[in-house]
Amino acid sequence: MNTNEKISQLRKQMTERNIAAVVVPSADPHQSEYLAKYWQARQWLTGFTGSAGTAVITKTQAILWTDFRYWIQAASQIKGSDFELFKQGEEDVPDFEDWLSQTLSKGDTVALDGNVVSVANAKKYKMVLSQKGMSLASEVDLISNIWTDRPPMPASRAFLLSDTYAGKTRIEKLAQIRDAMGKAGANAHLMTSLEDIAWTFNLRGEDVHTNPVNLAFAFVTLEKAILFINPDKVDSALLAQFTGDKIDLRPYDQVTGILGSLGKDTRILLDPDAVGYTLYRAVNSGAKIIEKVNPATELKAVKNEIEITHMRQTAVKDGVAMVNFLYWLENSIDDKPISEMSVANTLFEFRKEQPDFVNNSFDPIMAYKDHSAMCHYSASPESDALLKKEGMFLTDSGGNYLTGTTDITRTINLGIPGKQEIKDYTLVLKGHICVATALFPKGTKGFQIDTLARQFLWKEGMNFGHGTGHGVGFFLCVHEGPARISPHPIDVELKKGMLLTNEPGLYREGHYGIRLENMILVDEAHETEFGQFMKFENMTLCHFETSLMDRHLLSGPETNYLNSYHEQVYEKLSPCLDPEVAAWLKKKTGPI
Amino acid sequence: MNTNEKISQLRKQMTERNIAAVVVPSADPHQSEYLAKYWQARQWLTGFTGSAGTAVITKTQAILWTDFRYWIQAASQIKGSDFELFKQGEEDVPDFEDWLSQTLSKGDTVALDGNVVSVANAKKYKMVLSQKGMSLASEVDLISNIWTDRPPMPASRAFLLSDTYAGKTRIEKLAQIRDAMGKAGANAHLMTSLEDIAWTFNLRGEDVHTNPVNLAFAFVTLEKAILFINPDKVDSALLAQFTGDKIDLRPYDQVTGILGSLGKDTRILLDPDAVGYTLYRAVNSGAKIIEKVNPATELKAVKNEIEITHMRQTAVKDGVAMVNFLYWLENSIDDKPISEMSVANTLFEFRKEQPDFVNNSFDPIMAYKDHSAMCHYSASPESDALLKKEGMFLTDSGGNYLTGTTDITRTINLGIPGKQEIKDYTLVLKGHICVATALFPKGTKGFQIDTLARQFLWKEGMNFGHGTGHGVGFFLCVHEGPARISPHPIDVELKKGMLLTNEPGLYREGHYGIRLENMILVDEAHETEFGQFMKFENMTLCHFETSLMDRHLLSGPETNYLNSYHEQVYEKLSPCLDPEVAAWLKKKTGPI
Repeated sequence: MNTNEKISQLRKQMTERNIAAVVVPSADPHQSEYLAKYWQARQWLTGFTGSAGTAVITKTQAILWTDFRYWIQAASQIKGSDFELFKQGEEDVPDFEDWLSQTLSKGDTVALDGNVVSVANAKKYKMVLSQKGMSLASEVDLISNIWTDRPPMPASRAFLLSDTYAGKTRIEKLAQIRDAMGKAGANAHLMTSLEDIAWTFNLRGEDVHTNPVNLAFAFVTLEKAILFINPDKVDSALLAQFTGDKIDLRPYDQVTGILGSLGKDTRILLDPDAVGYTLYRAVNSGAKIIEKVNPATELKAVKNEIEITHMRQTAVKDGVAMVNFLYWLENSIDDKPISEMSVANTLFEFRKEQPDFVNNSFDPIMAYKDHSAMCHYSASPESDALLKKEGMFLTDSGGNYLTGTTDITRTINLGIPGKQEIKDYTLVLKGHICVATALFPKGTKGFQIDTLARQFLWKEGMNFGHGTGHGVGFFLCVHEGPARISPHPIDVELKKGMLLTNEPGLYREGHYGIRLENMILVDEAHETEFGQFMKFENMTLCHFETSLMDRHLLSGPETNYLNSYHEQVYEKLSPCLDPEVAAWLKKKTGPI
Repeated sequence: MNTNEKISQLRKQMTERNIAAVVVPSADPHQSEYLAKYWQARQWLTGFTGSAGTAVITKTQAILWTDFRYWIQAASQIKGSDFELFKQGEEDVPDFEDWLSQTLSKGDTVALDGNVVSVANAKKYKMVLSQKGMSLASEVDLISNIWTDRPPMPASRAFLLSDTYAGKTRIEKLAQIRDAMGKAGANAHLMTSLEDIAWTFNLRGEDVHTNPVNLAFAFVTLEKAILFINPDKVDSALLAQFTGDKIDLRPYDQVTGILGSLGKDTRILLDPDAVGYTLYRAVNSGAKIIEKVNPATELKAVKNEIEITHMRQTAVKDGVAMVNFLYWLENSIDDKPISEMSVANTLFEFRKEQPDFVNNSFDPIMAYKDHSAMCHYSASPESDALLKKEGMFLTDSGGNYLTGTTDITRTINLGIPGKQEIKDYTLVLKGHICVATALFPKGTKGFQIDTLARQFLWKEGMNFGHGTGHGVGFFLCVHEGPARISPHPIDVELKKGMLLTNEPGLYREGHYGIRLENMILVDEAHETEFGQFMKFENMTLCHFETSLMDRHLLSGPETNYLNSYHEQVYEKLSPCLDPEVAAWLKKKTGPI
């Protein structure tokens, strides 16, 4: 079935059911960032393989909304089909719900699978449509009827993360969650976020590509906890452990039943941005719903002492892999043909050599020359570029270890860098150092830090189009909420123990991109008469490229920071490196 | 009647009407920042004269909530009465609505004059109380019954601001507002904000201390405009002008009637943070209410070219007054006894010499030595300090001219400054310069700029407890929304034409405070491959104190900026100064 055949089958069903438009979002019942294949309905329907986008089919039009990261890719992938591209974020492009409310007629019905749309979004869409006398049918899933070769639900083996890694038992974590439930006036709690569930139950899996999570729901009351998970994923050891911890295991799809049977005295806490609308509507109407962020979302962001100790060791392992990789790269170009895609495999092999390594924490970005100017470039067989002894090369990658998750970006020049490349690199580095060395009052939010990374670029009329940093999980998702360092005013304080990235960049379209990324841990500094001050501990060990630095643009304190960071990189990594790599690193980390 | 007698009279009425608690906020029906005496009910009841606070009377307790600015003053002013002080902002102090919901019993009624509480607040209070089975009676005004010597409603003469000052006619402004109403889907609009009304109708008055506004409401439809204002305030010339512009004038209290008679096809736009709850409830239930910020709030924040031209000239006038004042101060100490309060009068006289001057734009802060460490210090006969040839002196003041509003703070040392004073001053100045010289992408919000002012202090474990800047009106209120430069994530873009202050500070309790404040105007800079960039135009002309600067702490660009700013101050002001003052300014503005 090609795309147009899919569209026409959908329209046939729409006519039968008197539906004016169908919305197919990129989402699953857990509001995950990355989707298991089973839920890639928008991708299946449109042929567009990017991670974000929304398809809308009316009787006369088929439209795909996607953001600037994917405009080129989406246009090329929908070519030849009836799909039109709407460039989300452009000034004259309305949100799809506004477009529908402007395009359809009073009395029309819009269908949307309520399983995969969040409570907050469903309410928003309903409101926009109802203002024009239209309605939202959220119980209608037309896709399943025509998606005959739909992949099966993922069913990887779930496995326990030992307390010696997690630092806290699931019983302790459930106690923390119950404490937060009590404070919010709740006596029950529905969790749908896969990473929150993984963290709470010290459970990992492989249900989502590069995210070590399991498809599951959790229901927690002040007395009991139930994990809804496909029984095939659970072995007897895991079952025994959970039984010992008094956690019930039930099949994944039984969660609906329990929500429908809640008593009138139930006050159930759920996150309207994480819970699907269908599940929300399944809650017995007698129960009171308290809409609030999952307690686990906030709890897991603050890493415990044992996690932090592991992460410091993980930094050494990941740094060794990175340095081995960069050494290999510098010494292998021109020896044999190496490409963006092949070096991704090579780096994976270097990481795999490290103890406790499990998998990449995301698909690495290996971007050569003008490819590196696209901050979300992903090499494909068609685009895969051969690396030569010239030009800029950006490598953004990370690993998931039993001992933590990593995320690092380095940019190098494979030949002799030009003046502009050196100036740009140095300005990005200044922003990186300004964040890394920041001292700030307790209570500061990420959006207050973000400007520190941009100011040197702004002064030169430059900027970068992504946030300065995101939260990172512990052997979990590489993008983790709720804290961020970004111009978006996320009202979340940077608390001691939060793990984030520090990754300013600069992208010259058609030429090259630069991004310099380390992970940083929020820590307490000293107290003054002005209150408690906070700082970041640097959590990534890998040299920057001194050949790309203009030392005249660096201040004394910036140079000192860089030299002392490089000293630390050499000290911590060299004992784990082969002598010739250590010697190479010694040169790379020499003082400037 | 003393405070306790007032409390007991209130309680008598509460018993008669079966009311468990009365809330008396600091507010008027226009949600003004400063209140006309007629609405200072909280002040009358408690004896506390600060601008912000909420009184709550239950059958057994009388409590005053106020924020950190007023803790000392409030404690002293309620001493001897039954009022207890609740320090708003302290960790264990609940908001008054939460306290009430925890303290009262199910079924209890809380009274609050709905005229003076905003729609947004009333809805919040109702929700909090209803969760505990309590109710809010918003139609009950117990204060008026016992406040027998209540001052009359203000009735200053309203006067027209000529189009040659305003730059746009009221007809043009109404057209802009109607355009915005149309975009919001509204065909009617209720305006209660006094400054929005003053701006829209090019009308000024003296109904509120130092705010050149008139008590009024406005009702605007796509065809007509009605101003509800006390007829005594309107002379025949004004009436003729408004009649010519087809604007109806009706008595202030007739606004309720028109809201009650709105037809079913009315879609009325109103700002839930500006409109009182009683007026909101007066809207005919058949009409649809669209809750949105007043169009005028956003329109008036962006100054037009004529206003900007006036403001540049106003900067010269205000700068001349300031320099004359600072010259006089330096040469008068020890000659005669001068105090914080007396110098306020002297500065007022210097401003009065300038053409188009109308009044202070706020009560000036004149703070000597340790008084300057209190950022909201207001000298009183009890605290009034005599100035000597030693120590730090902070002066924060502004004028309202027909040609614009000013706001400026300078800090000087009346003797020989110490090392710490010099270091502190220089760090504050670095923040000030960093904001003044900022280049930033179009779309940047104030909270992204705020950090630029703080970073040098943060690095030394210091900070200041107020925002870096606020919007300023044009011959209007010195604090004007919606844009701010502050750590609060106000989601408002800094647009070309917005006028703000740039006023970082530092306060060492018990010792001294420093604040350095200029006004800045958002302007376009150049466009680069990264988009349009914006900058600030400095709008205040008065030297900084070079004797308080450590030039070793200033970078080359910072020193250059300062020297060129000083050159500009001398060039623009010296032609308007007496020769000996000009000569003095020449020395003060010499290069460092």
